[in-house]
Amino acid sequence: MKKLKLGVIGTGRIGKVHIATLVQNVPQAEVVAVADLNIEGATEVAKGFGIETVYSNYKDVINHPEVEAIVICSPTDTHAQYIVEAARAGKHIFCEKPVDLSLEVIRGALEAVQKAGVKLMVGFNRRFDPNFLKIKQLVVEGKIGDPHILKITSRDPAPPPAEYSAVSGGMFMDMTIHDFDMARYIVGSEVTEVYVNASVLVDPEIGKVGDVDTAIITLSFANGAMGVIDNSRKAVYGYDQRVEIFGSKGMACADNNFPENHRYFASDGVHGSLPLNFFMDRYLEAYANEMKIFCEAVVNGLSLPVSGDDGLKSVAIALAAKKSNAEHRPVKLSEIL
Amino acid sequence: MKKLKLGVIGTGRIGKVHIATLVQNVPQAEVVAVADLNIEGATEVAKGFGIETVYSNYKDVINHPEVEAIVICSPTDTHAQYIVEAARAGKHIFCEKPVDLSLEVIRGALEAVQKAGVKLMVGFNRRFDPNFLKIKQLVVEGKIGDPHILKITSRDPAPPPAEYSAVSGGMFMDMTIHDFDMARYIVGSEVTEVYVNASVLVDPEIGKVGDVDTAIITLSFANGAMGVIDNSRKAVYGYDQRVEIFGSKGMACADNNFPENHRYFASDGVHGSLPLNFFMDRYLEAYANEMKIFCEAVVNGLSLPVSGDDGLKSVAIALAAKKSNAEHRPVKLSEIL
Amino acid sequence: MKKLKLGVIGTGRIGKVHIATLVQNVPQAEVVAVADLNIEGATEVAKGFGIETVYSNYKDVINHPEVEAIVICSPTDTHAQYIVEAARAGKHIFCEKPVDLSLEVIRGALEAVQKAGVKLMVGFNRRFDPNFLKIKQLVVEGKIGDPHILKITSRDPAPPPAEYSAVSGGMFMDMTIHDFDMARYIVGSEVTEVYVNASVLVDPEIGKVGDVDTAIITLSFANGAMGVIDNSRKAVYGYDQRVEIFGSKGMACADNNFPENHRYFASDGVHGSLPLNFFMDRYLEAYANEMKIFCEAVVNGLSLPVSGDDGLKSVAIALAAKKSNAEHRPVKLSEIL
Amino acid sequence: MKKLKLGVIGTGRIGKVHIATLVQNVPQAEVVAVADLNIEGATEVAKGFGIETVYSNYKDVINHPEVEAIVICSPTDTHAQYIVEAARAGKHIFCEKPVDLSLEVIRGALEAVQKAGVKLMVGFNRRFDPNFLKIKQLVVEGKIGDPHILKITSRDPAPPPAEYSAVSGGMFMDMTIHDFDMARYIVGSEVTEVYVNASVLVDPEIGKVGDVDTAIITLSFANGAMGVIDNSRKAVYGYDQRVEIFGSKGMACADNNFPENHRYFASDGVHGSLPLNFFMDRYLEAYANEMKIFCEAVVNGLSLPVSGDDGLKSVAIALAAKKSNAEHRPVKLSEIL
Repeated sequence: MKKLKLGVIGTGRIGKVHIATLVQNVPQAEVVAVADLNIEGATEVAKGFGIETVYSNYKDVINHPEVEAIVICSPTDTHAQYIVEAARAGKHIFCEKPVDLSLEVIRGALEAVQKAGVKLMVGFNRRFDPNFLKIKQLVVEGKIGDPHILKITSRDPAPPPAEYSAVSGGMFMDMTIHDFDMARYIVGSEVTEVYVNASVLVDPEIGKVGDVDTAIITLSFANGAMGVIDNSRKAVYGYDQRVEIFGSKGMACADNNFPENHRYFASDGVHGSLPLNFFMDRYLEAYANEMKIFCEAVVNGLSLPVSGDDGLKSVAIALAAKKSNAEHRPVKLSEIL
Repeated sequence: MKKLKLGVIGTGRIGKVHIATLVQNVPQAEVVAVADLNIEGATEVAKGFGIETVYSNYKDVINHPEVEAIVICSPTDTHAQYIVEAARAGKHIFCEKPVDLSLEVIRGALEAVQKAGVKLMVGFNRRFDPNFLKIKQLVVEGKIGDPHILKITSRDPAPPPAEYSAVSGGMFMDMTIHDFDMARYIVGSEVTEVYVNASVLVDPEIGKVGDVDTAIITLSFANGAMGVIDNSRKAVYGYDQRVEIFGSKGMACADNNFPENHRYFASDGVHGSLPLNFFMDRYLEAYANEMKIFCEAVVNGLSLPVSGDDGLKSVAIALAAKKSNAEHRPVKLSEIL
Repeated sequence: MKKLKLGVIGTGRIGKVHIATLVQNVPQAEVVAVADLNIEGATEVAKGFGIETVYSNYKDVINHPEVEAIVICSPTDTHAQYIVEAARAGKHIFCEKPVDLSLEVIRGALEAVQKAGVKLMVGFNRRFDPNFLKIKQLVVEGKIGDPHILKITSRDPAPPPAEYSAVSGGMFMDMTIHDFDMARYIVGSEVTEVYVNASVLVDPEIGKVGDVDTAIITLSFANGAMGVIDNSRKAVYGYDQRVEIFGSKGMACADNNFPENHRYFASDGVHGSLPLNFFMDRYLEAYANEMKIFCEAVVNGLSLPVSGDDGLKSVAIALAAKKSNAEHRPVKLSEIL
Repeated sequence: MKKLKLGVIGTGRIGKVHIATLVQNVPQAEVVAVADLNIEGATEVAKGFGIETVYSNYKDVINHPEVEAIVICSPTDTHAQYIVEAARAGKHIFCEKPVDLSLEVIRGALEAVQKAGVKLMVGFNRRFDPNFLKIKQLVVEGKIGDPHILKITSRDPAPPPAEYSAVSGGMFMDMTIHDFDMARYIVGSEVTEVYVNASVLVDPEIGKVGDVDTAIITLSFANGAMGVIDNSRKAVYGYDQRVEIFGSKGMACADNNFPENHRYFASDGVHGSLPLNFFMDRYLEAYANEMKIFCEAVVNGLSLPVSGDDGLKSVAIALAAKKSNAEHRPVKLSEIL
């Protein structure tokens, strides 16, 4: 079997997830080198997965002669630069979302990719979650008919530290960006306008750094559909990730995943378990699927299911959302793009 | 509209249910007289429903010249006699289950009905519950294929007083008899053998009067299917009434009914309401449906959906169950019938 | 038992529903007279329910000396006038929603009610649906904590004739008005701002008369909560009525009601029944509950659970929604009220 | 970290599952050698998982000086012999179920294990399924109270070839044996009596070799509880594995697992996906959990959660079931053990 030789930049939480998938579940993948500024951490991860080559400098991974594809799991502000360098080195690229917080910077990275003729996939893992894959399939098969109303509920179990919001670009950029991508993916059409009703209801510290923690976001799509996303940074019952699509021929909804399916009937009511609470548990299969698909597509010269443009668009919608919230009015994407 | 003029014997709990249905929900019905030894109770019921004629003697209802059909809601030990007298008076009959505890007595009553050429329907109301109607429909439509395994769960919220068991004929005769009828109804075939594993797990007093309160009952059917009924006199979470049929082409199951469909997600789990707890709530629609169907069928000269033979067979299975439990062995229906 | 003597104006669809409840399910009620311009229809209804007095002129009901309370089920444009006349005649009033399409007219009617010292209840029946009652109860008990996000899905099985929209005041006034009331009821706070994203996706004829058939409506509440309503005039799978409330301590959602709870497992998937498709089936209990509560409250001198101000507020929100849609911007309620 | 060095005998389907778990998911495990008569197959499996030592003779694995524990995945008729040899070689043992079809042979193997002072765990993987673990936990916590009724539904998607039944010991020995173990596990008490109602409803070829394919099995437990297992060799809708326990304080049930949680509402009904159809998908987590627990327990000198006696008891119940079916009567375990 032809194997894809990969180098991974960044061995933090998400880097480890991808390395585990590549080593344990993707027979066509071979991780030949990893890099992280935290060389001790990287060394420990590498050892655990039987990877022999560890660098502190990401350039060493990019320039490793055997490495054919780079998996970028470093902080957001390094993504674009690493994409450019990897592209110039002729390496295929998998990059975690968001590509960057600036559309200009993203465009620069995408140009480098295009010029180099390498493949780039952005890590919108939720597209590969079995629930949402099924919803998408029903849309594609025409079972929903013309999409009219999309509903996404996306709530985190607990807010990040308030200071994270400054670095991350804020809730729309670090959290809702997944939902913006999901919205485009499920509806199969571009977002044309955004209206945001957002507030600080969870943690006043978040408000102090200029971010919000609760929001209802209305979307308009080019094909006439409309959509709504509701977000909260804190759902006390855990990670809440649901999608519903309603159209001329029917409606499909995807519920959360639960650790098991028991029901307990006692004299005081019927009780069940909470949904899977951690994004790595909920999206375990999604992370594995996306990495498998990336490797298979690169090895077999197929097109990738998430493009650089998908990365650009989700950031553009997030910027429109921030503008809508700031100016308290609907904002057209054409004002941003 | 042609109306059926009815007389009701017995104005206790179940009598009131039927009267309410007849007065409020069956346009084709007119209750012209009621009777109960407890004349005060009967008078109050009659007044509440605008019924003018009240008797203490059931014979007056049977002999009332306008009455065309008799609804028998009196104690079990009077059923057969009243059936015989009503039949001889040329009146159609709806009789609560069981017809009697003795097969011989039942046979006598059914002969009187046949000789008189009147119609008789036995009150197996659960056949008219929307859940079980749907299951039956799927069987009849062939969606299940050949039935292989029938499962009935039937548990009461609380046991009756122990002394009731002596009068009622015991759990198999007063409670499981509904399940025996349901089993024949859903599978569409006769029970040929019964095996009972029963015990006293709920209330030792029940054991003292020679009855059981918990049982697993295995059935064999003439068409090759097999079935199992599990009973308890006490489910602390309420009335539990479920049916499942499994066959060569599929499986259908009916869950309990709930007062509403909310789910509450808190930090300690997901919670919902208990099933409807009272048989009159759970089977409200079933009671109304059976009385409507009885009246419509009599008025229009149609055949009735529950026959006297159905009443006989369920008692025969209950007797086989008692024998199986007493002798700790499978008992063929041919030993009983 | 003290009985409330009622007169019903309007014996169309909703009039019949209320009469049936009053006659069959409210022991404290007595319907002494009904009126409808369609005297044949009114006579037939009256006969079916044993009501002896039938008029073609509503004034005869209002002025009937025995009548203590008036149930107004006539077309919307007569509501305010009948309220005023009934109030002046010293009769208590139950009025179907909306009270009127004009805030000024409503205010006039409410003043007449206040001056007369009679009681007025507006027919927001959904508040009395067991599902939504349970959600409200969880909010009131503090189980949700501070409400953050309210979600209402409200979709009709089929659009009304396009011409109806002109008379009715349009979708926001005839359909979403229920959801506006539900939003205020569940959140327990006033709506302060509305933003509408609406379109014609179901039937172009609806667009021709200036109305919409699909909408996402974002609400802001005085207590800091936010909400979203999604509407469609046509859900091919039937009547879709769900509510979800999310807050600092938990989340509660109410699903649709189904005719029964079966699941059918075949080789091609798991199948179940569609939700109750007709609003009279779905809200049967709600209609009965509201009429019982109205009668009990009037007889016992208690306060009514839906006030005239509730009727006013829901119309004001509908007007804000229309303005938001027309001007494509968020509209504050203070611009309307 | 202290690692447990394991040798695996048998690299067929279940052998591969265990090897994959050990290599990929159990950090404390190291597979140092595998053996299979089919040396080509074994070599391929070994290569895929980076295992260097492959034998055709199982003795070489048992006698491998580094091997501390043996995982026996060979055909049933070799289990007892390999257990004896492994025990004599001082190796700990994980053995697939059933240990053997003969109680005498099992007893001999267990004696060898005891004499050698090694640890033995029998592969009742379903005990480690998250659904059934949750049910067991509720029982252990006293949430069910005294267990009264246990219900197990266990249906395979398709029958094995008829000839398999001869080798396997028949349905009770190869399929229901899992349910017998589950019954003892959930109820926490020994089975004292078995009654079987079984038949050939799926495939006449199965009947020709003297086996059955459909059964209802009633169990009595030493603690007074009773139980019922229903089995079919062919559920057209897939693998159906459910457990319910009912007791004095409540009831808990575990539903099947589904690949995702979507619902699709179309004009013809509500539709969802079938349960996970393959036992390796349904019990993926269970297989991984059992192997992790085995390794951890051996490394840390802890007691194992499934004993040799558990292996013996399940076979004894299966033999009682065969006898009950043959003799058409309830059979006490004391007749067998």
